[in-house]
Amino acid sequence: MISKKTLGLYLALVHYPVLDRRGETIASAVTNLDLHDLARLSRTYDLRACFIVTPLEDQKALVRRLLSHWCEGVGREVMTDRAEALRCLRVEESIDRVEERITAAEGARPLVWVTSARRGESTLNAQDARGVQQELRRPALILLGTGWGLAPRIMERADAALEPIEGHNGYNHLSVRCAAAILLDRFYR
Amino acid sequence: MISKKTLGLYLALVHYPVLDRRGETIASAVTNLDLHDLARLSRTYDLRACFIVTPLEDQKALVRRLLSHWCEGVGREVMTDRAEALRCLRVEESIDRVEERITAAEGARPLVWVTSARRGESTLNAQDARGVQQELRRPALILLGTGWGLAPRIMERADAALEPIEGHNGYNHLSVRCAAAILLDRFYR
Repeated sequence: MISKKTLGLYLALVHYPVLDRRGETIASAVTNLDLHDLARLSRTYDLRACFIVTPLEDQKALVRRLLSHWCEGVGREVMTDRAEALRCLRVEESIDRVEERITAAEGARPLVWVTSARRGESTLNAQDARGVQQELRRPALILLGTGWGLAPRIMERADAALEPIEGHNGYNHLSVRCAAAILLDRFYR
Repeated sequence: MISKKTLGLYLALVHYPVLDRRGETIASAVTNLDLHDLARLSRTYDLRACFIVTPLEDQKALVRRLLSHWCEGVGREVMTDRAEALRCLRVEESIDRVEERITAAEGARPLVWVTSARRGESTLNAQDARGVQQELRRPALILLGTGWGLAPRIMERADAALEPIEGHNGYNHLSVRCAAAILLDRFYR
């Protein structure tokens, strides 16, 4: 059951289905530094977990190897704060599986929010999203796309799209690491 | 001379002098992804420039090679938005040189603000820093340390230390990429 005190917030870094620069749907490759940055961010803002979504066996193995090095292996003794952060990460096959796991853990289906660098017709800013979550008393899952962004079918079935991070001049190409950092900081502002 | 409209803000990613995990002063290695992330961030928030500070010849050559690939070479045609961002980067030998270049460009010495994951005795939050800059009408330079942070002698001679980014639980180990993103977003909030 959901605790009355804290509503669970989850991140998922999606490697499939995402777009490549031609607009084709692909499975992108996992980037080592994304895992470290998102884990440290998730730990800093006390998220319930950050899911790394990929259906590719070799990519899943890569993530597990990294986690085992830092959380159980030599890395753990050298840098305990890395282990502490990386323990927030979970590898999953698909977005559906992530939603199922959250539902099982929280006793309620999560609100699913997508992110994009493009401004859609109706977007929710980070603070309003927090308000919606508190009103509905449901866990929430923010989907971050890699490559050239989440595939349209994922965008369409989401509960809402979060407002893109816009700067001062229309340039809108932040890394997923920096965009996630700003998004979480605004969410908890 | 400084424009009355916009006060110049600069970032510098410092690779020397910084600390290693034993507290020794070192020159750290340049990380490719740092350059991309900070360039995109600087471009998004319309900074005057982002300096990459390293005295090591091979590291300077590395940065120049990356810039020439993306800004002049093949990369430029494939991804124009990368070129646009990376043009914000400048390679410099030392923090002193960075300060000289800013002074020459702006007609006034910059306020120098250091950042740290540790909370010092007196720190300025990002929005107050902006207020100070507007009151004094001077350019400002934010120093970001790599490795285990800026060396004490750099911390001591700065005009102020900016408040560290703190999360919800005392965990305080964000990547320099994510910390810089949150810092700039708060500065212009």
